[in-house]
This record gives sequence, C-alpha cells and structure tokens, in this order.
Amino acid sequence: MNIKFTKMHGIGNDFVVIDAYSSVVSLSANQIRAIADRHFGIGCDQLLLVEKSTLPNVDFRYRIFNADGSEVEQCGNGARCFVRFVHDKHLTEKNEIRVETMRGIITLTLENNGQVTVNMGPPRFNPDQIPFIADAPAETYSLDVGGEEINISAVSMGNPHAVQIVANTGSAPVALQGPLIEAHPRFPEHVNAGFMQIIDDHHIRLRVFERGSGETLACGSGACAAVVAGIKLGLLNSPVNVSMRGGELNIVWNGNNSDVMMTGPAEPVFDGELDLSRIDTQTVATQTAVI
Amino acid sequence: MNIKFTKMHGIGNDFVVIDAYSSVVSLSANQIRAIADRHFGIGCDQLLLVEKSTLPNVDFRYRIFNADGSEVEQCGNGARCFVRFVHDKHLTEKNEIRVETMRGIITLTLENNGQVTVNMGPPRFNPDQIPFIADAPAETYSLDVGGEEINISAVSMGNPHAVQIVANTGSAPVALQGPLIEAHPRFPEHVNAGFMQIIDDHHIRLRVFERGSGETLACGSGACAAVVAGIKLGLLNSPVNVSMRGGELNIVWNGNNSDVMMTGPAEPVFDGELDLSRIDTQTVATQTAVI
Repeated sequence: MNIKFTKMHGIGNDFVVIDAYSSVVSLSANQIRAIADRHFGIGCDQLLLVEKSTLPNVDFRYRIFNADGSEVEQCGNGARCFVRFVHDKHLTEKNEIRVETMRGIITLTLENNGQVTVNMGPPRFNPDQIPFIADAPAETYSLDVGGEEINISAVSMGNPHAVQIVANTGSAPVALQGPLIEAHPRFPEHVNAGFMQIIDDHHIRLRVFERGSGETLACGSGACAAVVAGIKLGLLNSPVNVSMRGGELNIVWNGNNSDVMMTGPAEPVFDGELDLSRIDTQTVATQTAVI
Repeated sequence: MNIKFTKMHGIGNDFVVIDAYSSVVSLSANQIRAIADRHFGIGCDQLLLVEKSTLPNVDFRYRIFNADGSEVEQCGNGARCFVRFVHDKHLTEKNEIRVETMRGIITLTLENNGQVTVNMGPPRFNPDQIPFIADAPAETYSLDVGGEEINISAVSMGNPHAVQIVANTGSAPVALQGPLIEAHPRFPEHVNAGFMQIIDDHHIRLRVFERGSGETLACGSGACAAVVAGIKLGLLNSPVNVSMRGGELNIVWNGNNSDVMMTGPAEPVFDGELDLSRIDTQTVATQTAVI
C-alpha cells in the first residue's frame, strides 16, 4: 500500500503528516515506529493523522503519535502544521478551523502571513496545580540547585515549568543546571527548565531543558510559560517575541485567567510517497535491543 | 527548483540519493547541510549524487557528501545503495557496474537476490600501515585498557581496526572500553573498536565503536576487519555472515593479499520531491550556534 505524506516542521519540531481525510489510513504502532525511525524510515518527532470528524460543526479530527507509537494529547507545533497542511492540500478554505483532538475541540487560526495561532489555554500558578512543593504561592521561589540558590517562577501550561532569568542565554548553564532542575525533589512530576534572557519588554531569548528530552531546539509551552512569568514580574508586556534555536514564536497573554495565544510558523519541507511494505518494522523493533 | 530524490539505507546507514545523471544537479555545502538536517531537511547520514562519468568504459560517477557538506572518498553502504538506485531508476541494465569515485574506478556487482557486492580491497596487518605502535607484527597484541589487559587483532581496511573476541556482544563493555580503545596512545590516528562474538565458523555477531562517531548500527569496514582477524586466527572460514544491530553482511576473504568482498542489502525506503527554496539553509547554519 502506497501512502502520500508531507514532511513538515514547526520551529524544528518535525512531523510526518498524512491525509487520512480523503481516504482512510490505518497504521499499527509498529508501523508508526518504523516510519518515525530516522535511519530505516522517514524520520520524525511525531506522526500526524488528519481524519474526518464525526462531530457536528467540527471540520477535522487529528491524531498525534510519538515516535514510539503511543498516541499523545496535543502539541502546539503539530497543531500549526496541521492547519498549514489542510490549507496547502485544499482540504478546507476556512481560516478558523474547529478540530477534534484527544483533549477536546480546539480552534486554530491561519493568519494572513501564513503563520498559525494556537490557543494554549490559561496558565496555572498554584503550587498544587504545577505540582510544586512550596509553603505558599509566591511570585518567585528560591531553589537550591547543586548547592547554588537560584530564583525561579513556577508555571503550569498543562505541563510544569521552572523559569529563571539569565543575563545571557549563550552562556547560561543549561547543560549543568537543566538535569538538576528537571529532577529537583520539589517538582514531584519533574519539570521543564527554562532559561530566559530579556532583550526588551517585547522580546526574549529562551532555551529550555525539556523533561525527559534534554535541551530541544524550541519548546512551545516553555515559550508561553516564560512570557507569562515575565509579564507577572512586570518585566514583559504582551505581545512578546520569543527567539529560540529552532525559530521564533509570538505569545499573547492578557493576564489573570485568560488563555495564552501562541502564533508561529509551520513549514512544509517535502512531499513523499511511501510503499508501506518497504518499511522494515522488524529491524526497527529489534535494533535498539542489543544483539 | 524541484529535485526528485530517493531515501535509501544500507543496514541502517542512510542516504538521500539524487539523480544528477539524467540532468545536472549542483548543490552548495550549505544546501547539503540543510538537506541532511533531520529536523529542518530530509535527513540523512550522507548525500549521494549519481553523475555521468567522462572516462571511457565507465558507467557512472558518484560523489558522497557527509551531513556537514564535506565530500568524502568512499563508503561501502553508499556504494550498495548507488547500485540499487541506478537499477531501480533504469539508468542501466548492467549487473557489473564500473564507477568513478574519488579513490578511483571501482567495480560493483548487483547479485540475483538484489544484494550488492563491493570490493573492499586487501586488508593490511603491518603495524606501520594501520598505524599501530608495536615492536613486531603479531597475530594478536596485548593492550592495556583502563588497567585491564585485553587481546586484540590490529587490521587496516583502509582505516584502522582493533578487534577483540567477546563471549557475548550483548554484555560486551562497548560503552566503557570503546572510547578508551578508540583513543589508545598505541593507535596514533585512533582506531575503530570491534567486539566480535563467534557463533560458529561462518557466523559472528559484531558491535563496533566507530572512530569519531561512537557505537553505530553497523560498520562495513569493521565487519571486514573482524572476519579477516577471525580467519587469521583459525576461528572462522570464508564466507562469514556478520550480524549487526542494523542488519547482516556477508564477507568473503581468501587470505593473504586477496581483496575482501562485502555483500549486503541496499533498501529504498521512499521517493520524494523537494523544492530547494523550502530548504532553510540559514536556520540550519545557525541552529547549533547558541542564540
């Protein structure tokens, strides 16, 4: 069976996007793992299936699978690529798209410049909601990291973030402090560690040591968390441009319980056609096992 | 400008193969780096350009570029993919193909089962040729590795190899000893460290810690070196199957100064079409620089 796909990325987070809307496509976890493998398959961080929704007034359903074959809830970079894909492939002409995901129906907006805006939901600051162990809620917390006291903001964007301000992201101790913050005992479910340099009140530079992944090219929820933390501290004003190694995001937040809006690019890289029988699920399944 | 390509792999070593035979294709080092990038481009270990040769009685010329844009001399896995590609794309009907490479003209053979045989040249054992510091040539040498004495065979297949026999590749101390052997002072140009388990006299398992790369899925010259070392020690008989994490190779060697013949698979994975203007050379060039 031949499958057409488009390889895309959102600020370096890359996707194999498959049209399962025009005709049904069904993939096993083994096939997804083999497709995602960067040596034996196409290679991607995640696979995105665009499907028909059965719900009224909903345009599409999309499903996101990690490279290990597991289905995941949501992904801001994937949502942007989804919107570009359904427009580029003429599956819709709408600019506001209602889409069914595992976490419910979300609305995504294609902007005039080709970028896409994703509603990332409201930030949470209560230590219980992050979760973070603290005596009482505060603007910043002092954290002992390898014997050194650092100041962090603690924010949940659905996932936990510890954001600190640094003088220069280039010389920030990301590799040294990242793993210590990630696994700090005061974050019982671990945490994403952000290092934010404030350029001016509408522009930051950011590096993120992601929970379970290490430093990545870019982190959408990390960008939201950093901007929210900076606005709460009176150092930033919405909208804020966030420069990361993989690219730029623009974050809007109007304070309190309002939703954080993230706008950024989604880039198609190439189109391909894959003969599923060529995908070597067996070697991929066993290659990481030691022979 | 749109470029058609085929993504292929040889036991896990993966290539973007481009037909520059039917029409001229010229790529800058920046473009090659961007194409090879696994998040922003197509992603590959190496890029392979199939070109016309201007020499008489030579069928093709091919050029191989590393992911950093530099042109390299030769690659057994790439040579096998090249042969499969020119057959699959009907650029030739010959089974014995004479091809111009940076190291001269080589002959490659497409076997009836679709596998490809590559002449890897003769092994070299003289310590000066490896290079390896030893008082005199010997079958095996005792090497001090982190305070432990191990026995190795020293073989050059154009590049240096130190091969040791282990009881079980699964529990072999590749991560521990690999870096110590690679940088051992008795190998002035460093060395590839092979860990060989003998299943029977026609079958080995092999893991290789490659010079400059760490442990890889498979190593063609390492497979040749291990088999040659095993035959010299009277433990193996040609032909020998070599099982590695990325797949299997079959090695033939008739002793003394005869050439080592390596046979293995070359697998097309998918066909694609890339708009070169979509390739983001700037982000790829700067993404590893710290912002």
